Amino acid sequence: MVKYKLTIQYLGTRFSGWQIQKDRKTVQQTLKEAVTRVTGETASVVGAGRTDAGVHALEQVAHLRLESSMPARRLQRALNGVLPADIRVKRLARVSLVFHAQKDAVKKRYVYRIVNDQVLSPFLKGLVCHIFPKLDVGAMDAAARLFEGHHDFTAFAASTTTVKDRHRTVFRSQVRKRGTEIRYEVEADGFLHHMVRNMAGTLIEVGTGKRQVADIGRILESGDRRQAGVTAPPEGLYLAKVWYGKPKTRLSAGSTL
Amino acid sequence: MVKYKLTIQYLGTRFSGWQIQKDRKTVQQTLKEAVTRVTGETASVVGAGRTDAGVHALEQVAHLRLESSMPARRLQRALNGVLPADIRVKRLARVSLVFHAQKDAVKKRYVYRIVNDQVLSPFLKGLVCHIFPKLDVGAMDAAARLFEGHHDFTAFAASTTTVKDRHRTVFRSQVRKRGTEIRYEVEADGFLHHMVRNMAGTLIEVGTGKRQVADIGRILESGDRRQAGVTAPPEGLYLAKVWYGKPKTRLSAGSTL
Repeated sequence: MVKYKLTIQYLGTRFSGWQIQKDRKTVQQTLKEAVTRVTGETASVVGAGRTDAGVHALEQVAHLRLESSMPARRLQRALNGVLPADIRVKRLARVSLVFHAQKDAVKKRYVYRIVNDQVLSPFLKGLVCHIFPKLDVGAMDAAARLFEGHHDFTAFAASTTTVKDRHRTVFRSQVRKRGTEIRYEVEADGFLHHMVRNMAGTLIEVGTGKRQVADIGRILESGDRRQAGVTAPPEGLYLAKVWYGKPKTRLSAGSTL
Repeated sequence: MVKYKLTIQYLGTRFSGWQIQKDRKTVQQTLKEAVTRVTGETASVVGAGRTDAGVHALEQVAHLRLESSMPARRLQRALNGVLPADIRVKRLARVSLVFHAQKDAVKKRYVYRIVNDQVLSPFLKGLVCHIFPKLDVGAMDAAARLFEGHHDFTAFAASTTTVKDRHRTVFRSQVRKRGTEIRYEVEADGFLHHMVRNMAGTLIEVGTGKRQVADIGRILESGDRRQAGVTAPPEGLYLAKVWYGKPKTRLSAGSTL
């Protein structure tokens, strides 16, 4: 029995998100089929987190447990050889059997990309959220900072969320502008369903002047999804990075590569 | 009668190139249909140069002659409103009736993008040429410089080229590396059919060691297409900029905006 940690990049456009669903093309299902083609084994690929339909990943992390081992480099090349070009295994390494891509994640970073310009470059189609009216980036950043800290994020979770504890710790939340692109970057110990897209949608409304910076605190306190802004479109969202507690990602002293 | 200069950006992936062809979706045809939808007029959109199927444009230039005038800003917005997202009118300005997008072009820049890495990012699919073996960028650049000057480029033109004079002046030809991306940039007073892709294909062969830097002069002198390298794939190529002699792009003193 061997375990591998996969760092995966994908263009979410053609997929109904990460998670396996009946009769839908998903990233997880496509990876699972690639593993079977390459190894002959039926094994599940467990991701650090789910991403919605159309959402991209710069670095999703997953684990894969196989009965027979294969050199990491060979397995990576073989998987990339059979995967469609919109999913790539960027890195692949053997890890300890106790490593769990979802349970051991201690922090994640999401990036939400907005292009604030009259004309959207054809090369950014499906890769950003295009906003025509001029956004107030200073106000957006001031509002974004108010998400930092330990809060109950019920008001920013999808109303269908079934998770009981909606408290999350946001370590960093900021909006920056470079040229015509505005990037919202947020890092937390975990995210609820639709949380980043609802935060981004609310920040865009702050940017257009529809909402005030000070509204953020009030919305958080309300615990009411209807108080927050619209869910920003999926094509601007990227799962950018997943962090793990160092010890668990290392091989135990006794293992052999 | 009014004339407009359009600066157009397009993702070439879905199109059978620039030029109108029967029963094919082309950029020129799509623009022509957009003009008719917006103005009700049937007018041709004349481009600075043709691009092959799958080739992109950062700044293609075209002219358009209409019977009735419309404010430039309004015409640009209306065109972008009906065009598919993979074609955008980046700039649009009224110009003198004597301006001709193809005949008045004095210089063009093409860029050929290569990613030289083990794994190609899904976000660059269709946007670059992916080369797996390590390329010698120094040798490629030295070879590229040998294209500079006034030469007969017959050996680098498609064998089907019917143009009689295959002499062109290359003002700049260089290869640069940034991270895992290698860019070949070439500026000339004109280009023959497939010329940049054949030059890029030959430079890649210099990069892999299949050819030597000094071969370039010999190939140019041979005037024989079979001596040059393979035609590099279209998805790495971008028409990047078109220059015009200043006087002709200005409105004549008597015109009114």
